[in-house]
Amino acid sequence: MSLSTALIIIGDEILEGRTRDSNGYWLARRLKEVGLGLSEILVVSDNLADLSKLFKDCLAKYRVIFISGGLGPTLDDVTKQALADATSNKILESSQGAEMAKENYLRYGKEWTPVLNSYHMVPENFNAVTNPKGLAPGLVYCNENSMLLAAPGVPWEFEEMVDSVFLPILKKEFPKQLKRMQELVICTRFIPEEKIFGELCPNLWKDLSAFGKVSSLPQVLGINIIVRAADLDEEKRDQIVELINSTELSEYVWQYGSLSLPELIIKKACEKGLSIGMAESCTGGLSASRLTDIPGSSAVFMGSLVTYSNQAKEKLLGVKEKTLLDHGAVSTETVEEMAIGAREKLDCDFAIAFSGIAGPGGGSDEKPVGTLAFALSGPNQTYSKLINYRGDRLKLKNRFSEFGLFKLLEALS
Amino acid sequence: MSLSTALIIIGDEILEGRTRDSNGYWLARRLKEVGLGLSEILVVSDNLADLSKLFKDCLAKYRVIFISGGLGPTLDDVTKQALADATSNKILESSQGAEMAKENYLRYGKEWTPVLNSYHMVPENFNAVTNPKGLAPGLVYCNENSMLLAAPGVPWEFEEMVDSVFLPILKKEFPKQLKRMQELVICTRFIPEEKIFGELCPNLWKDLSAFGKVSSLPQVLGINIIVRAADLDEEKRDQIVELINSTELSEYVWQYGSLSLPELIIKKACEKGLSIGMAESCTGGLSASRLTDIPGSSAVFMGSLVTYSNQAKEKLLGVKEKTLLDHGAVSTETVEEMAIGAREKLDCDFAIAFSGIAGPGGGSDEKPVGTLAFALSGPNQTYSKLINYRGDRLKLKNRFSEFGLFKLLEALS
Repeated sequence: MSLSTALIIIGDEILEGRTRDSNGYWLARRLKEVGLGLSEILVVSDNLADLSKLFKDCLAKYRVIFISGGLGPTLDDVTKQALADATSNKILESSQGAEMAKENYLRYGKEWTPVLNSYHMVPENFNAVTNPKGLAPGLVYCNENSMLLAAPGVPWEFEEMVDSVFLPILKKEFPKQLKRMQELVICTRFIPEEKIFGELCPNLWKDLSAFGKVSSLPQVLGINIIVRAADLDEEKRDQIVELINSTELSEYVWQYGSLSLPELIIKKACEKGLSIGMAESCTGGLSASRLTDIPGSSAVFMGSLVTYSNQAKEKLLGVKEKTLLDHGAVSTETVEEMAIGAREKLDCDFAIAFSGIAGPGGGSDEKPVGTLAFALSGPNQTYSKLINYRGDRLKLKNRFSEFGLFKLLEALS
Repeated sequence: MSLSTALIIIGDEILEGRTRDSNGYWLARRLKEVGLGLSEILVVSDNLADLSKLFKDCLAKYRVIFISGGLGPTLDDVTKQALADATSNKILESSQGAEMAKENYLRYGKEWTPVLNSYHMVPENFNAVTNPKGLAPGLVYCNENSMLLAAPGVPWEFEEMVDSVFLPILKKEFPKQLKRMQELVICTRFIPEEKIFGELCPNLWKDLSAFGKVSSLPQVLGINIIVRAADLDEEKRDQIVELINSTELSEYVWQYGSLSLPELIIKKACEKGLSIGMAESCTGGLSASRLTDIPGSSAVFMGSLVTYSNQAKEKLLGVKEKTLLDHGAVSTETVEEMAIGAREKLDCDFAIAFSGIAGPGGGSDEKPVGTLAFALSGPNQTYSKLINYRGDRLKLKNRFSEFGLFKLLEALS
C-alpha cells in the first residue's frame, strides 16, 4: 500500500498572488519519481491558531506531511510555534538546534550566535536538520503514526532539503513503499482526443489498462497517453508499442518517452553531427531560448537571428524587399527566404524560420492573429507552410515555437 | 470584514506532477484585484467520498468556495456527484442544464443532445451556468451561509467563467466587500533585505505600516516592498514616496510600481522614440523573447542576434578573431564588440550584449559558472561589466537577462 502524504505550503505571498508556488509542482514530480504519491496540497495563511489545528488534523490523517515555509527569523514565521502547539510540545533551547544553525552559518563563512535569531529554539521531540542551501534549519518529528518534515519555503532550500535530508529518512523508514513507478508516455500529434478514443481505437483505454494506470494529457502538439505501473519492464513496454502499432494510431505517434522537443532536437543533432540555426520574427527569441535551456546545446546550435523589423529581415537574412512588398512579412515566400538566409549566415545544416502574427494587434481578415508562416531549409530542400492557431500572445508564441521545433525534429530524424 | 474564500482544485494530474497548476495563481491575483482575499487553496484527488466530505467541511468553513475541475464527461469527473452528496441533493434531469449545454455547443456550431453526455443532469438546487470558452456548464449553489462556484479546470475555461459569470454574481451579492485594494510597490535593487531593514532604515517597516499592510518580496534585482490598503490614494502614495526619499534607501529604489522590466523598457523606448536591439550568447534568445512578450514591442525592438557559436559572433556581429583568442568569448572586450556590432547591424539607438557561462559545463577557476560579461552600446558610449551570479542553468539565464534589461532601462531613462 502506498503512503498517504500531504504537502502544506505556508505563505500569504502565494494566496495573495504575489508569488507563483513552485514547491508543490516540484515535490509532486519528485515524489512520483521515488514511487510516492501526493494525496493533497494545501496552501494556507500563516495564522498560528489555524496552522496548529491544520497540523493536528493532518497528523491524524496522513502518514507523511511535508511543510514548506514559515521557518525564517521574521515575525510572521509562525510554523515552529504551530508545530509545537499541534504536538503539545514546548519550544526549548536546544544544543542540537544550535549546532545545526552553526553548521548552516559556517557553510557561508559566517558565525551564528543566539543573538542573531532563535534558530536554536526547537520544539521538544523535534529534531533540527541541516539546511544545505540556506541558514534556517529544518525540523523533523515522528510519532507512532505520522512524520512531519518541515523545510523553509525558498524553492532551492526546500528542494535541497527534501533531496538530501527528507528522502533519505523516508527511504530508511519505508524501504518497501519507496520504489520507482515506471511509466511509458505515448506522444501523439495533430489528432484530437475524441478521435483517438472514439473513432480510431475505441478499445485502447481498456487494453492499456491491463498494463497499468492510464491517463491522457493534452499538449500543444497533441495528446500524450501515459501508462504507469510499478512493473512496467522492457517486455511490457514492447507489448504496448506492439499494441499501438496494430492500430491506426501508430502513424500519429512521434515519441515513446517524455523528452521535450528541445531535448530531442539537441540529442538527435549531436548524434548525427548536424548543426542547427533559426530566424525568428513572431517567436521573438523564444525558440532559441528553449533550445539553449538544454545543457550542451552549444555543440550543435549556432544561433538565431531574431529579426523583428522588416529592415532586419532584409539586412541580416537577405530577404528581398520585393518579396516583403509583394507577399508581406507573414508569407511562405518571406519565411523561405528567412530560412535560407539563416542557414547561410549561421552556416548550419538545418535552419527554421518563423514569421507570424502573435497579436493582439496586426491581424487582418486574410491573415488573422494566430497565423504562422513557417519554413525549414536543409541541405536538400526548403519547405514552407502557412498555418493557424488560437490563443493569446504568449500562448501563440509557444504554439508557433512548438510547431516549428517539431518540424525541425522531423527533419533531423 | 472580508469574505472567507477557498479554492479547491481537483486533479490527479497536478498531484502526480504532470501538470503545473495555474488556476490557483491566476485566481489569487484576480481576487486580489477585486479586493477579495483567498484564505486557502487545496489541491485534491478526484475521489468521490473524499471530495464530498471536503465540500461539506468547506461549506461549514468558508463563505465562498471556488471549485476547479472534474466537470467534464469522462469517468473520473466526479465533482458533480460529490457536490450533490455534500449538499444532500439528488442529480436530476434539468431543462435549465440542457439549455446551457445547448448554448455552449451552439457557440461552436454544434448541436447538443442528451446522447452526447450528461451535461443536462444537475444536482437539485444548483444552477447550471454558461461556459463561454468550452462545452461543460459550470455549477452555482447558494445556501444561507455559503456559495459554491464550480468551473471546469481547463485554465481558459476556468478564467473566463470566473470573470464573466462568478465575479458578477459575487459583486451583486457582496457589493460592499468587493472593492479594489490599492497597493504601492517600492522596487529596490542591489541591496539585501537585512541591510534595508537592519542598517539603512530600521523604522521603515513600522512607519510604512501606518499606511497599510506591509510585505517584502525578494526578486532577482532586489527587494520589493509592498504597501497595501483599501484607501491608498494619490496623497498617501506621495507621502510614502516622501518618506522613502528622506532615507538612504531612496538611491536604491528604481521603480514605484509593478511593471516588469520588459514592459518598462518598451514603454520608455516608445515614449522617447528610441530603437533597441541586442546580441545574446548565454541568454540564448531569452532576453529577446521577454521583450517580444510585450504587445507593441515591434515598434521599438529591432531584433536580437543570438550568436551561440564564436563563428557566428565573428560573422554576424563583427567580433574580431583576435579579441576572441586573446580574451575569450566571456570577456568585456568581446561583449563590447558584440554590443557595437548589434547596434550597427540592427541599426538601433541602444544595443545590449550578453556573453557568459550558464553551466553546468564551461566554467573555469578564473571564470566560473555564473560569470556574465555584459555590455551596452548607445549613441554616446559603450559600457561593459563582468559580474557573477549563482544558480542553475535556467536561473542563471534569467538572472543574466534581468541584469541586462535593467541596465538597458537605466540607459533609456
